[in-house]
Amino acid sequence: MGNTFGHLFRITTFGESHGGGVGVIIDGCPPRVAISSDEIQAELDRRRPGQSKITTPRKESDRCQILSGVFQGKTLGTPIAILVQNKDTRPQDYSEMATTYRPSHADATYDAKYGFRNYQGGGRSSARETIGRVAAGAIAKKILHQAAGVEIIGYVKRIQDLEATVDVDTVTLAAVEGNIVRCPDLTAAERMIDRIEASRDQGDSIGGVVECVARQVPKGLGSPVFDKLEADLAKGVMSLPASKGVELGSGFAGTLLTGSQHNDEFYRDDQGEIRTRTNRSGGTQGGISNGETIVMRVAFKPTATIRREQRTVTSQGQETVLAARGRHDPCVLPRAVPMVEAMMALVLCDHLLRHHGQCHLLD
Amino acid sequence: MGNTFGHLFRITTFGESHGGGVGVIIDGCPPRVAISSDEIQAELDRRRPGQSKITTPRKESDRCQILSGVFQGKTLGTPIAILVQNKDTRPQDYSEMATTYRPSHADATYDAKYGFRNYQGGGRSSARETIGRVAAGAIAKKILHQAAGVEIIGYVKRIQDLEATVDVDTVTLAAVEGNIVRCPDLTAAERMIDRIEASRDQGDSIGGVVECVARQVPKGLGSPVFDKLEADLAKGVMSLPASKGVELGSGFAGTLLTGSQHNDEFYRDDQGEIRTRTNRSGGTQGGISNGETIVMRVAFKPTATIRREQRTVTSQGQETVLAARGRHDPCVLPRAVPMVEAMMALVLCDHLLRHHGQCHLLD
Amino acid sequence: MGNTFGHLFRITTFGESHGGGVGVIIDGCPPRVAISSDEIQAELDRRRPGQSKITTPRKESDRCQILSGVFQGKTLGTPIAILVQNKDTRPQDYSEMATTYRPSHADATYDAKYGFRNYQGGGRSSARETIGRVAAGAIAKKILHQAAGVEIIGYVKRIQDLEATVDVDTVTLAAVEGNIVRCPDLTAAERMIDRIEASRDQGDSIGGVVECVARQVPKGLGSPVFDKLEADLAKGVMSLPASKGVELGSGFAGTLLTGSQHNDEFYRDDQGEIRTRTNRSGGTQGGISNGETIVMRVAFKPTATIRREQRTVTSQGQETVLAARGRHDPCVLPRAVPMVEAMMALVLCDHLLRHHGQCHLLD
Amino acid sequence: MGNTFGHLFRITTFGESHGGGVGVIIDGCPPRVAISSDEIQAELDRRRPGQSKITTPRKESDRCQILSGVFQGKTLGTPIAILVQNKDTRPQDYSEMATTYRPSHADATYDAKYGFRNYQGGGRSSARETIGRVAAGAIAKKILHQAAGVEIIGYVKRIQDLEATVDVDTVTLAAVEGNIVRCPDLTAAERMIDRIEASRDQGDSIGGVVECVARQVPKGLGSPVFDKLEADLAKGVMSLPASKGVELGSGFAGTLLTGSQHNDEFYRDDQGEIRTRTNRSGGTQGGISNGETIVMRVAFKPTATIRREQRTVTSQGQETVLAARGRHDPCVLPRAVPMVEAMMALVLCDHLLRHHGQCHLLD
Repeated sequence: MGNTFGHLFRITTFGESHGGGVGVIIDGCPPRVAISSDEIQAELDRRRPGQSKITTPRKESDRCQILSGVFQGKTLGTPIAILVQNKDTRPQDYSEMATTYRPSHADATYDAKYGFRNYQGGGRSSARETIGRVAAGAIAKKILHQAAGVEIIGYVKRIQDLEATVDVDTVTLAAVEGNIVRCPDLTAAERMIDRIEASRDQGDSIGGVVECVARQVPKGLGSPVFDKLEADLAKGVMSLPASKGVELGSGFAGTLLTGSQHNDEFYRDDQGEIRTRTNRSGGTQGGISNGETIVMRVAFKPTATIRREQRTVTSQGQETVLAARGRHDPCVLPRAVPMVEAMMALVLCDHLLRHHGQCHLLD
Repeated sequence: MGNTFGHLFRITTFGESHGGGVGVIIDGCPPRVAISSDEIQAELDRRRPGQSKITTPRKESDRCQILSGVFQGKTLGTPIAILVQNKDTRPQDYSEMATTYRPSHADATYDAKYGFRNYQGGGRSSARETIGRVAAGAIAKKILHQAAGVEIIGYVKRIQDLEATVDVDTVTLAAVEGNIVRCPDLTAAERMIDRIEASRDQGDSIGGVVECVARQVPKGLGSPVFDKLEADLAKGVMSLPASKGVELGSGFAGTLLTGSQHNDEFYRDDQGEIRTRTNRSGGTQGGISNGETIVMRVAFKPTATIRREQRTVTSQGQETVLAARGRHDPCVLPRAVPMVEAMMALVLCDHLLRHHGQCHLLD
Repeated sequence: MGNTFGHLFRITTFGESHGGGVGVIIDGCPPRVAISSDEIQAELDRRRPGQSKITTPRKESDRCQILSGVFQGKTLGTPIAILVQNKDTRPQDYSEMATTYRPSHADATYDAKYGFRNYQGGGRSSARETIGRVAAGAIAKKILHQAAGVEIIGYVKRIQDLEATVDVDTVTLAAVEGNIVRCPDLTAAERMIDRIEASRDQGDSIGGVVECVARQVPKGLGSPVFDKLEADLAKGVMSLPASKGVELGSGFAGTLLTGSQHNDEFYRDDQGEIRTRTNRSGGTQGGISNGETIVMRVAFKPTATIRREQRTVTSQGQETVLAARGRHDPCVLPRAVPMVEAMMALVLCDHLLRHHGQCHLLD
Repeated sequence: MGNTFGHLFRITTFGESHGGGVGVIIDGCPPRVAISSDEIQAELDRRRPGQSKITTPRKESDRCQILSGVFQGKTLGTPIAILVQNKDTRPQDYSEMATTYRPSHADATYDAKYGFRNYQGGGRSSARETIGRVAAGAIAKKILHQAAGVEIIGYVKRIQDLEATVDVDTVTLAAVEGNIVRCPDLTAAERMIDRIEASRDQGDSIGGVVECVARQVPKGLGSPVFDKLEADLAKGVMSLPASKGVELGSGFAGTLLTGSQHNDEFYRDDQGEIRTRTNRSGGTQGGISNGETIVMRVAFKPTATIRREQRTVTSQGQETVLAARGRHDPCVLPRAVPMVEAMMALVLCDHLLRHHGQCHLLD
């Protein structure tokens, strides 16, 4: 338990950073959905290392292979297994990682929990695990778009204090992919890139905020009371590596307003649709989508792996000093964008199926 | 689906604000735990309406009744069913709520999802639903304390911009319960109370932040990768009414730091225990508790129900104006404190059982 | 865990035979289904004690109360909580049950598992627990009938060696309810009743087989590979008290045939529908309904409670002799019929919703 | 949903008979369990085709590969992914299977459910899917043995009317593996082998009963009320291909007895342990193991694939005649033995972890 996410559209991921590979099983996928490994690969390429000068220079092609569940280019309704083999297996020296706990990594807690861990490159706590999520997210996105025209777009909203200006209702994937930091505000993007490079040059790392929106989400998704849309979204992104916070709509800033300032008044639009004039709710009310754009922000801490020396202890409790060698991301944000999108897609797709099953049966 | 939370220690809540009652079934509770309805009632009294001048004056005694699962004062290991009957059933005029959508409430989304709703007092979306959570949380707290000495303490950290100074390692329940706003910083508490009263007098409402800590949490709780402790905590509190954001440890503020500033260095304490010097991680690393204090903050928006006039529409789409009559909370924060504590207790108790089952079987 | 059944249409039962009451929460019920407590009561009356001379003379009215989830006579889509209060609480002497293990009852195993038990009348292992199942089954039946015209009919097929002749395609509820043993073959029914009375008069008990059919089940229900329809049906009925075996279609007798004798050949009927000429498969192939009548048989052992003296031990391990006093069923079969029907209805309803959610989303 | 089994020790299988491969993810495995691919392979070799003259002559080596979750020969506590690649991919002519429904196979129901299927060799409904179960079962067996000394032994109890005499308390794995039909009664085994060969020579097939026992099972496993041990065992084996019935202990035959004949009287044995003199309950009472040998029997129908001509229809509804070409099992029983053992091991292991988590936490 713990490696499965979702109820009707349900994924289970597996794999350590070193070993046979990483991947995912998607259970409950509707049948007859056209899907190719190229479409999945396109999403994986957005998260893979080595894609630009501001990500880790580690070269991993991360080619995915669909093992089951797809036949003649279409889903069968049976479990879709996707595997990405681990390639980067040069006999690297992991002896230091075997005994020394990296600060703010999961080395010590895995040892505390399991009494044993794969110390090679982070093992299960490695961000390589998210490959399975992003692969599954590619399929979820396709179903959401096909069933309801849903668009999911994530982007870097802030790096440290450098905040972008983005219109949640018009931002495009093209604008996001237009630069290597994945920030659709070009002016901000340039400053962000400079900041990341400076941090890297100092052997340090930085964090920031990813914003992710979903447009054209049908009204009615979400299952009160525990599986509220915002609750499942929060769980999804707070299970990503390095995330420390999440907010929907007005979020923490909304706590500064009064009710009369914060409430979203209803009106009837030209098509006769009931809408809200503002969207401080962020697309959900009472845990259920209201048809407005879903807006979520996720805080990612600065990467824990840095070249600077840090004090730490060994697994035996001896004090020592550690400085990361090798290749790492100075900032996870650009690669986190497709991960956040994937989690939003997985949550929405699961709730789309659940809603259809419960509420549209007797239509 | 959607009304159940947890895996081994699992709760299912039921009930609308009007009707026979609200309650909870707790499945998977360890046997032979001493528990009385008085202990549960004590927690319910912390969340009930009418407890002070800054909560709604609605009088609801909310007496709980244990229907099953407890015998001779001890848990049986069988499902514990707890019922609180709905008492406040005077033939109030709900005709306006039947047709008019309250802004930033769940009236419209419930209609969109189910095509039908109980319009009396919020129905299932009423905060009365949390009675079941708080009752179950009382039992979870007891198990956590008995098994591991865990202490869970929540409090109001901020009302709008009025922020309290609280030491997460020493704050006591007595300090929290020492005033009606449940803020252990007395100076801040007084200003908060004034602010809430002023808001109420203006027919408006305000929001803020609840902070909740768990101390003496054993190392090793949490199940990567999706059921990380922070992910389940986030889901738990983001499923509470009116919550809009959650953060663990450094949270959103941590995104402003560099890795070298943010990382928690390890050391060995006097007892030979591996500890971290700082706690920006907030008590978890890689989804697993590290033995440090768990620190979580939850943003609650200003109460949606206000006396001021707001523009809205009817369920038929006709534009109209609405002003809440009757009794409501000008600020949910004081009553939200036991709810946040309950969700943290439920998550920790579930993971304590899961951890024991998976990792200590072969000890 | 352990007290919940189903995935999208999911029930959780609670309650011991003595204490506040027994009941059920139904989560995931489609909204806008007309349901009344009278309809539920009608099913409960088929399982209640004291209904005829061949059931226990214990008088329990077992009146059900809908606490939530239904408003103005229709389901809300929110959890439906149903409670039946325990009435029969005269200060009966249970001191013997507190210490002496009844043979082939669950007294000893509950003690072994939980280290503690409610010894009054069987506690959680009492057949009173099935009240919640039958209540939920009443709603499941209604949904199945409304959505697809499904008919579920159970009956006593065999008492010891007295076997009834029943046509699975034409048997009616009226024929079943036409006599107190619930066997639609009148000749067999009379002999069964005599046999049960004779057994009762000897202070003994007997068992038999309940057969249950579902007609007009849509093709396509069931989720390979673990949640095959036959697997979920088997789990459902093997979780009933006193059941010792289950078979679908040809069952154990089918193992005597050859493949050429056993296979169900396909043909096209007058309406152009693909059908099978025989139905040894019992309505499912590969775990999925094929549109033919589902035929299941469940073996129930003779009631464990008998007036005859039996050797046993106390909880302290002292050998002793026990003879049941008071009122008990000489044969559970007549009252087991609605329980088996309920489990079949719950499984089919759950799979109807799941199928609709996964496979009809993109229609 | 539907491809996952178990709660704390939870497996998810994937794969069609043709495509990239079949396999399993095991989630929740305790850490630090020594396991090698050779141990898993040994179990897979018991189920693979081509192992003897009475199984299909299809040659599939079915070599398993552990992709994750095991490091330096021990489990990590993270998901264990096991893959068996599909090798037998000669461009066989499946055009007939693409259009013609094989009687008593799942071709027609998969089409009815999903509107699409992989017609190559049975796709997901192929018994190749059980590779994942058997692989996971090998690990479950090891944990059960290590934690509690549990022994699980299955064998062929009956082929058609040829019934073996086996002592459930003393039968050994060596005796079972001593002949190709896996029947420890040598006299019966020889007759069974002759019968299977005769059936094969006639282009036909036959069925029978597998019996499986578990010895040294600790008292207290099983979670009333729905997850009773017998309920989960029934679900497990009724989800195997070709199974039509299951019974525990006295099963269907027990319905012929009276209560006084059937009840298992308690006594105290030499070690002071509370035992039952007889074991008609089959090792469980009230859904919980009582320490006696668990005895389960599973009915398997005659293999649906036969060389004899059968009438059937095409997917378009045209009547036609079909005779299987190629290689198939005349009797699935010998290869079903390790499958039944695996399901029993998976259920017991899951409940061992659950019991430890819930009931031993506060010890």
